[in-house]
Amino acid sequence: MTTPRRLESYVCGCWTPGSQPGQTLLDAATGEPVAVIDSTGIDFAAALAHGREAAGPRLRAMSFHERAGMLKALGLALMAQKEEFYAESLHTGATRTDGWVDIEGGIGTMLTFASKARRELPNARVLTDGDVEPLSKDGSFSAQHILTPLHGVAVHINAFNFPIWGMLEKIAPTLLAGMPCLVKPASQTAYLTELMVRRIVETGILPEGALQLICGSVGDLLDHVTEQDAVTFTGSAWTGRKLKTHPAVIANSVRFTMEADSLNAAILGPDAVAGTPEFDLFVREVAREMTVKAGQKCTAIRRVIAPRAQVDALVAALDERLGKTAVGLPGDEGVRMGPLASLDQREEVRERIRDLQAAAEIVAGDPDAVRVTSGDAARGAFLNPVLMYAAKPFAAGAVHEVEAFGPVSTVMPYDDLDEAVALARMGRGSLVTSVFTDDPKVAEELVLGTAPWHGRVLIGNRASAKSSTGHGSPLAPLVHGGPGRAGGGEEMGGIRGVKHYMQRTAVQGAPRLLSAVTGRWIPGADVRQGEHPFRKSLAELRIGDQLVTATRTVTREDVEHFAHFTGDTFYAHMDEAAAKANPFFDDRVAHGYLIASFAAGLFVEPNPGPVLANYGVDNLRFLTPVYFGDTLQVRLTCKEINPRENAGHGEVRWDCQVTNQKGEVVAQYDVLTMVAKEWPLAQAAAQ
Amino acid sequence: MTTPRRLESYVCGCWTPGSQPGQTLLDAATGEPVAVIDSTGIDFAAALAHGREAAGPRLRAMSFHERAGMLKALGLALMAQKEEFYAESLHTGATRTDGWVDIEGGIGTMLTFASKARRELPNARVLTDGDVEPLSKDGSFSAQHILTPLHGVAVHINAFNFPIWGMLEKIAPTLLAGMPCLVKPASQTAYLTELMVRRIVETGILPEGALQLICGSVGDLLDHVTEQDAVTFTGSAWTGRKLKTHPAVIANSVRFTMEADSLNAAILGPDAVAGTPEFDLFVREVAREMTVKAGQKCTAIRRVIAPRAQVDALVAALDERLGKTAVGLPGDEGVRMGPLASLDQREEVRERIRDLQAAAEIVAGDPDAVRVTSGDAARGAFLNPVLMYAAKPFAAGAVHEVEAFGPVSTVMPYDDLDEAVALARMGRGSLVTSVFTDDPKVAEELVLGTAPWHGRVLIGNRASAKSSTGHGSPLAPLVHGGPGRAGGGEEMGGIRGVKHYMQRTAVQGAPRLLSAVTGRWIPGADVRQGEHPFRKSLAELRIGDQLVTATRTVTREDVEHFAHFTGDTFYAHMDEAAAKANPFFDDRVAHGYLIASFAAGLFVEPNPGPVLANYGVDNLRFLTPVYFGDTLQVRLTCKEINPRENAGHGEVRWDCQVTNQKGEVVAQYDVLTMVAKEWPLAQAAAQ
Repeated sequence: MTTPRRLESYVCGCWTPGSQPGQTLLDAATGEPVAVIDSTGIDFAAALAHGREAAGPRLRAMSFHERAGMLKALGLALMAQKEEFYAESLHTGATRTDGWVDIEGGIGTMLTFASKARRELPNARVLTDGDVEPLSKDGSFSAQHILTPLHGVAVHINAFNFPIWGMLEKIAPTLLAGMPCLVKPASQTAYLTELMVRRIVETGILPEGALQLICGSVGDLLDHVTEQDAVTFTGSAWTGRKLKTHPAVIANSVRFTMEADSLNAAILGPDAVAGTPEFDLFVREVAREMTVKAGQKCTAIRRVIAPRAQVDALVAALDERLGKTAVGLPGDEGVRMGPLASLDQREEVRERIRDLQAAAEIVAGDPDAVRVTSGDAARGAFLNPVLMYAAKPFAAGAVHEVEAFGPVSTVMPYDDLDEAVALARMGRGSLVTSVFTDDPKVAEELVLGTAPWHGRVLIGNRASAKSSTGHGSPLAPLVHGGPGRAGGGEEMGGIRGVKHYMQRTAVQGAPRLLSAVTGRWIPGADVRQGEHPFRKSLAELRIGDQLVTATRTVTREDVEHFAHFTGDTFYAHMDEAAAKANPFFDDRVAHGYLIASFAAGLFVEPNPGPVLANYGVDNLRFLTPVYFGDTLQVRLTCKEINPRENAGHGEVRWDCQVTNQKGEVVAQYDVLTMVAKEWPLAQAAAQ
Repeated sequence: MTTPRRLESYVCGCWTPGSQPGQTLLDAATGEPVAVIDSTGIDFAAALAHGREAAGPRLRAMSFHERAGMLKALGLALMAQKEEFYAESLHTGATRTDGWVDIEGGIGTMLTFASKARRELPNARVLTDGDVEPLSKDGSFSAQHILTPLHGVAVHINAFNFPIWGMLEKIAPTLLAGMPCLVKPASQTAYLTELMVRRIVETGILPEGALQLICGSVGDLLDHVTEQDAVTFTGSAWTGRKLKTHPAVIANSVRFTMEADSLNAAILGPDAVAGTPEFDLFVREVAREMTVKAGQKCTAIRRVIAPRAQVDALVAALDERLGKTAVGLPGDEGVRMGPLASLDQREEVRERIRDLQAAAEIVAGDPDAVRVTSGDAARGAFLNPVLMYAAKPFAAGAVHEVEAFGPVSTVMPYDDLDEAVALARMGRGSLVTSVFTDDPKVAEELVLGTAPWHGRVLIGNRASAKSSTGHGSPLAPLVHGGPGRAGGGEEMGGIRGVKHYMQRTAVQGAPRLLSAVTGRWIPGADVRQGEHPFRKSLAELRIGDQLVTATRTVTREDVEHFAHFTGDTFYAHMDEAAAKANPFFDDRVAHGYLIASFAAGLFVEPNPGPVLANYGVDNLRFLTPVYFGDTLQVRLTCKEINPRENAGHGEVRWDCQVTNQKGEVVAQYDVLTMVAKEWPLAQAAAQ
């Protein structure tokens, strides 16, 4: 038996042990001491100040793409060291599969955020949100919503079940937003979080102070949060409510996100009778959700809602499958389910099963008779899966209120879809429900009926059997969180998650000044004419650089020629009577694509130059019909410049407005181009 | 002296007086009794149940456009009766100008929401949020976020200062979302809200239960809110915190939005010295914000931050302007400022001025010597504007903490922009700051420096002098709310405000089933080929209807012909050496616009038919270069159908994918068309 490791907190740039003897943390499977944890004596106010002052300015000085690059580098460095984390993870009771969700799932989440940020965010520091809102008829007063990073620290208080994923899924969007983090893992499994934070700090990739760690109690930390900080909590509703109503959180309107365990449901569709692929998938999914992490997942299926006629077959199939689940030491080959997190946790689950028995009977498994394939059932927190059945689920209060945070689920029957929806809603807000059906009507009714009570709904069927990520997996691109019992929070959701750590501000003013704030040209802002802007590399190009072209008259011959050349002989271009009968046109009109093509003919600079390609067009609207004899002119203005990191070019968005001889706008769109950073091209960039 | 009107609550479909004698409300200017208010005996749980059960299903059965039509009709009906509201508004102390903000501003806000909903939301019941997220490589598993209305009631608890606007700005987005409302106005001015609710109910435009009203205390109402309800509060931070921590609100994670008074600032830029238009605009704006509604606005300017060298000139100019403000009976001609809401309120403001005197001195006005041009200064709650000056604003705690909710502001000096930003931030979160400057650099620094502390920042300068809506006006398209002291809430913001009353849910599954849930075709969902979909009216067209076209090979001659015809002789199309030197191309390529034009030639149906027009293109991306000899084919699939209310046509969005002979996607975009509801066109629709 080795001496347990003394965990340290990482605050104010130093690894710091607590000043008291601390609490000993035991291996879930063997009962051996793993680590000692204590945070007494840490100056929590100083830790918050360090994050705000040392790291905040440095993170905010980086662009979104720079922060994304930082996270990618960090994710790759951690992935290279994953085996060390897997080894430590065994102490928590996690099998290799369980550890995969936590470790590679966590690192993968960080990498996904990094990649989404590079693809979906500009390489800038200020994010615009929504369109420019014109607020005056003459265009002299407009508004633009912007998002800027909060200037405080995000305090992330996490649950014991995912010591790595729980940290990374939160710090990835926070750091992308430009905000430092302070992480407090649940003590029970903090040794794994601490190990990863050590490895993160060693990489030197994050600015000092961008990630701090508290191993142990957070003491008076929350007394020091301000209106620029944020607090997130994952764990029990009881603790969550206490934190949410903390005087400083309330007094300063501190952003508080809570993700509590919920009584997630899975619904078997009426079409998914025994013998269908959906029935089998449902059995597999329920059994998997009960046993992965020994059912210690906030997304695990607690309530199994099935057509009354399928209940017997379902219980039998689950009984058979669960009975085969080998429970034992998580590192042993063949073991499918490890222990619960601790002996206390096992006692807690048994207690909750007794509560559930007020409303449901045990139909498979025995909470008191532990069968293991390896390990010591007295020292390790082992428990075999327990399946329950509530014959009268509408009268079974406990099954909709009591959560046994372990390998425990309750089956309940329904008679029609309305009942199935009503039962799912009785959870009063959950993270996720899944619906197994191959019938589009059933999917529509069950999903829309349960959606207002859920942050996520998964549909399972034969077509997605192989590719589905499953009921229990929150994904970086999707929101995670749920209303009511689930805490009312929202995490992740791709770039939405980044915005949780930013302040949205409506900025109003004259376009010229608004444009200075956002770094993007908007209609009415200053323009500069002169050299053709397609002759300018990113080094020379500025927003507001503008070209006003020569004019071109569109003739009947042009339209007919274009129609025959392209094959687009749509009646509105070719048939006078039909065009006049059309409610939008007074006569034959030019093709929209002809207008856009002539516009390009007017604005392009033909000679080799820094504009490398037109890679697309956004928001093209044909606003006024173009009749034969109308004369077109184009005003092309540089609107956004988005230089790529590690490339010789960047994206430039041009505002393109095509007008007719009366000054009416006939077409409005954004032209998207790739433009070289330097011209002539540097050798490296040209390759 | 008339007998005061007994106010009634409108709950469960009945106008109901309270059972107790109640509180008498006095005219702010004359002290005469106006109304009596009491809500004792009302069954608040029943009121919530009535909203949820009677109105919820009816509102949710309507589409966004139907709800928008309802709000438009209501807004127009109320506008036609506006004079009655203006007359009642006088009792609150509001001048005609003050009343305009409340009454026409409120109705206008509702109409703006209605019009934004018609323009920006689909004519559907389920809203999609963000793009489809592909979750599998083979396209068999994807996700789409959706928004569905909450199934509860939105309880709106409002402040006394805007009895009409305060109600309408909240119920407009709530009803658009499909959620019923229960409004509780502040007692002091509830008679005006009650009058408007009477007129609203009389119109019969809203489904019964969609709007209920509590005149008086809300009693045990909050004990009955559930995870599907929402509560908003506008008013004092003290009351707001009490409501936010109400046990049922916390236990059920009820959405709670708070908008509290804040110490909003206005900053005079260093360039805006005396004599500039910005200086004069600043003086006018500060004086206006101090006197409109007698300074009883949550957005009023409380802190005036000015360059040290401008302070004397600024105080002199404000003194002169404020001294001319005629205070008196709000209905009298020439009166610029009416009384405060009540004598108690005046005492409260005088008390706060005394608090402020710990840190600032009075430099204009006298809180104790009231000068009126009409009315009785003993019976009406009159108070002349009071300007204060804090010489050492960084040491002047009170000016950043104490709010006198009346015609009171404090001037403070700054020495550089960092100081100006730091002073604005000392409000610890405000609804709005305004910045007066004509210098883009100053605008950028001040706006970005203050943005994280604010929900709105207004830039004032000469160019927007005539069109600016001003510091104090929240606008329907812009977010209203602020972090920290301002309550941490967010209201309005256009369609963002509608989403506050909906649940966001990530739905995952096979595209075919996902598509059934959202009512929109997504890649991988079922398709149907057969008759050309352009031959189908909206009565026949279904999502998933698809055309796979013939093919067309792009030749060198095509490209050269197109180049010379359109004038687009960009080097990548024309110059082999230059094209090969380009990092994106291996050889000369076809024009993007040529690809889109040929695609249209492949997919259009030339004969007169139900497709009336191509009104635009969205998200066009050229994904693979098209070289000479490449062969194009188009797959056009009906993706979204959005029938217009009160029109003979609707919008149809088509997924357009252009591939080459290798099956590579060369271009991907949405084609937007107008399609007739019936074909042949009905006579009425064709006009």
